[in-house]
Amino acid sequence: MNPYDFVDANRKDFIEELKELLRIPSISTMSEHKGDVRRAAEWLKAHLESIGMARVALYETPGNPIVYAEWMEAGDAPTVLIYGHYDVQPADDADNLWLSDPFEPEVRDGSLYARGATDDKGQTFTQIKAIQSLLANGQVPVNVKFIIEGEEESGSTNLYPFVEQHTDLLAADVVIVSDTSILGLDRPSIVVGLRGIVSLEIEVRGPSYDLHSGMYGGLVQNPAQALVQILAAMHDEHGHIMVPGFYDNVREVDETERAELAKAPFTLERLQRETGVRVAWGEPEYAPHERIGIRPTLEFNGLVSGWTGEGGKTVLPAKALAKVTCRLVPDQSPDEIYRKIRDYVAAITPETVTSEVRKLHEGMWAVVDTESAYMQAAVRAYEFGFGKRPIFMREGGSIPIVGTFQQHLGAPVILMGFGLPDDGLHGPNEKYSLHCFDRGMKTAIKFYEELGG
Amino acid sequence: MNPYDFVDANRKDFIEELKELLRIPSISTMSEHKGDVRRAAEWLKAHLESIGMARVALYETPGNPIVYAEWMEAGDAPTVLIYGHYDVQPADDADNLWLSDPFEPEVRDGSLYARGATDDKGQTFTQIKAIQSLLANGQVPVNVKFIIEGEEESGSTNLYPFVEQHTDLLAADVVIVSDTSILGLDRPSIVVGLRGIVSLEIEVRGPSYDLHSGMYGGLVQNPAQALVQILAAMHDEHGHIMVPGFYDNVREVDETERAELAKAPFTLERLQRETGVRVAWGEPEYAPHERIGIRPTLEFNGLVSGWTGEGGKTVLPAKALAKVTCRLVPDQSPDEIYRKIRDYVAAITPETVTSEVRKLHEGMWAVVDTESAYMQAAVRAYEFGFGKRPIFMREGGSIPIVGTFQQHLGAPVILMGFGLPDDGLHGPNEKYSLHCFDRGMKTAIKFYEELGG
Repeated sequence: MNPYDFVDANRKDFIEELKELLRIPSISTMSEHKGDVRRAAEWLKAHLESIGMARVALYETPGNPIVYAEWMEAGDAPTVLIYGHYDVQPADDADNLWLSDPFEPEVRDGSLYARGATDDKGQTFTQIKAIQSLLANGQVPVNVKFIIEGEEESGSTNLYPFVEQHTDLLAADVVIVSDTSILGLDRPSIVVGLRGIVSLEIEVRGPSYDLHSGMYGGLVQNPAQALVQILAAMHDEHGHIMVPGFYDNVREVDETERAELAKAPFTLERLQRETGVRVAWGEPEYAPHERIGIRPTLEFNGLVSGWTGEGGKTVLPAKALAKVTCRLVPDQSPDEIYRKIRDYVAAITPETVTSEVRKLHEGMWAVVDTESAYMQAAVRAYEFGFGKRPIFMREGGSIPIVGTFQQHLGAPVILMGFGLPDDGLHGPNEKYSLHCFDRGMKTAIKFYEELGG
Repeated sequence: MNPYDFVDANRKDFIEELKELLRIPSISTMSEHKGDVRRAAEWLKAHLESIGMARVALYETPGNPIVYAEWMEAGDAPTVLIYGHYDVQPADDADNLWLSDPFEPEVRDGSLYARGATDDKGQTFTQIKAIQSLLANGQVPVNVKFIIEGEEESGSTNLYPFVEQHTDLLAADVVIVSDTSILGLDRPSIVVGLRGIVSLEIEVRGPSYDLHSGMYGGLVQNPAQALVQILAAMHDEHGHIMVPGFYDNVREVDETERAELAKAPFTLERLQRETGVRVAWGEPEYAPHERIGIRPTLEFNGLVSGWTGEGGKTVLPAKALAKVTCRLVPDQSPDEIYRKIRDYVAAITPETVTSEVRKLHEGMWAVVDTESAYMQAAVRAYEFGFGKRPIFMREGGSIPIVGTFQQHLGAPVILMGFGLPDDGLHGPNEKYSLHCFDRGMKTAIKFYEELGG
């Protein structure tokens, strides 16, 4: 059976198998889920063995295991390294926004809902099923290696050294990463730029314990107040970041690429539908799609201080914490930005409290070559799978490992994403369109056939 | 046995009884403790019956019951209404700061440690044991009424109308409130001013759910960022409150009273010992003790937005919340201040988000007459109990019911407090000095003997 027919014939089974993987709450940022993360790795190992991959193994790391598998029987054909991750974001649901259990997958309106449905279990699975469909036909036209990590959502800490130390094992002609989105089912697109990231905690400390706000209020500096003063000094009213030197190394994007990026313009209607906000925000000198694609950010992901429960508690809190991430663009470096923020916070912290800026994790931005033969093959594959020629775009998210692959394997990277903009990744009701699953498998099969020539 | 000897003879039993009451987690701000709150009321009812009080009853309210008891056999002697509260603050302990279980009382270094030890179960109990010691001697020199509520920590919502509707039941010549502190074991003092309070939540809302900070960061206004901008606009760098009109109705305190208040001066050493902060903070035009006693505040009690757990989560939060209380001074009104903050927040909220200011509860400030015969009797009683003449001071805390008693019962109020400044009320390791318990009982007995003449 040709691989496309195999996809059509086995669609239902593929969905049930994916549901099995999605049921495992492999949240890598929460230590209590350590066991679940390993369970997901072991599930994948068994699954890759079952579809006929060779040398399937879990590589242990100081953190979560890395799943490896290969099929190297395509002789002189190119070798493709397929990257994915089996860990997921937390799925806390204090406001009861999830319509179904995040770890009990459910199909509604043509989409599969679950934490990890698109990011990245569903997309990784799309690649696995494409290779399985080719294997079922007797032959994959390229040599294939899978590397599937379990720490993408917590900074890929152990993958970086693993790649550096296993360049032979991972050697490839091209690296495929399925962990991005297209603009729409009828608007295929390929991401050619990703932002870098540095994740921080800013903590302000005052008294040694929570004080009575009546007995000390007005006389002791409130760390929550000091923190909001510090955080408020991070942006001006137009959204420009006020950390001295923050933009020093931002490379201006040339007019040719700005024109290409403008083919995927922002529409307020789409933003409203996807997010519920009435109006856009951000640097007025840049078009809305440019604010995401080519400009850096400094974002507050979380705030916590004092009493956060029901009702009131009249405390003057002992400390206040902000969780912050910066999205970075060429040629900013995560450590440079961390140091600039650290120094700025130190300079503006009043003497009545103490502050600390801690770096949690970091990752480099990436820019992808749009001229390579691999990219041209990818363009043809999307045109086959989605019925339309894809456009190039830059995405606001970060997949720091892309830069590491480029640097240490010397191979071009293709971001072969199949998500949709409203998939709700990292938020409630994450989903993966079953159309994307289907077209994704066919796009990938076509791509490998194109490479195999 | 004379009542002082009775105290000495029964000290151990009194402590064991108080421990029983302290074991009940009667947290009125948390609905899950509703049953515990009632259990504390019923414990008190039974206890007041056991010491010989009459007409002991629980008065039901839409919230928690009010405990009432009386002993009216002193003929023409004055009638004293003794107020206390049996509810306590939460005792969340995320940082493991409590050295013993907050609801398993423990004596260490001459103090009894538990949530509510001083605020206000311990102090209320001091009054009950003083009356018991007089009753055990056959006669209380005054007529006594107890009113002990269960909602002080959540705004006394149902006590205000209860007082207004039961002026006959509660009629008294003087009201005693034991819910404040003295300056030190060898520095007795009587609080003659309390701040009012208004408790608020300020919430900023943006997208309908938490967004991926990479996909939308830079294009969608972050509600946490909008909130910190709003909160940062609440104070200037010197601690002055920037809400327009906030100070309009603040009555200046005359030089005579400022001189009296200056007898209890602030010392940096004491502040450092009590709180762990290195330096004081606040309005430079006012002496440190005045910042607490005679100036209003706007304090952040809590902040919460987005991801607050371990590690990072790269979300752009849907909403951000601040818990705020203002301590108020004569002649500010809680509702006036709420409205001014509400209008200010509305005026400075950017159009990219929505905001709401909700009033949780409120209470009036109070100023006490220092010239009355009752106050003079209280001064003599403290001198007897603590061996030193007490000084008058203003406290930063709020006991809003004091103003209600003054207004509706037409009776002077004496704030007969026995706490110490480092008792940790509302914070971890709340305690009540057993010296204060002992001297407090004897001061109270002496006061009632003075009144009975």
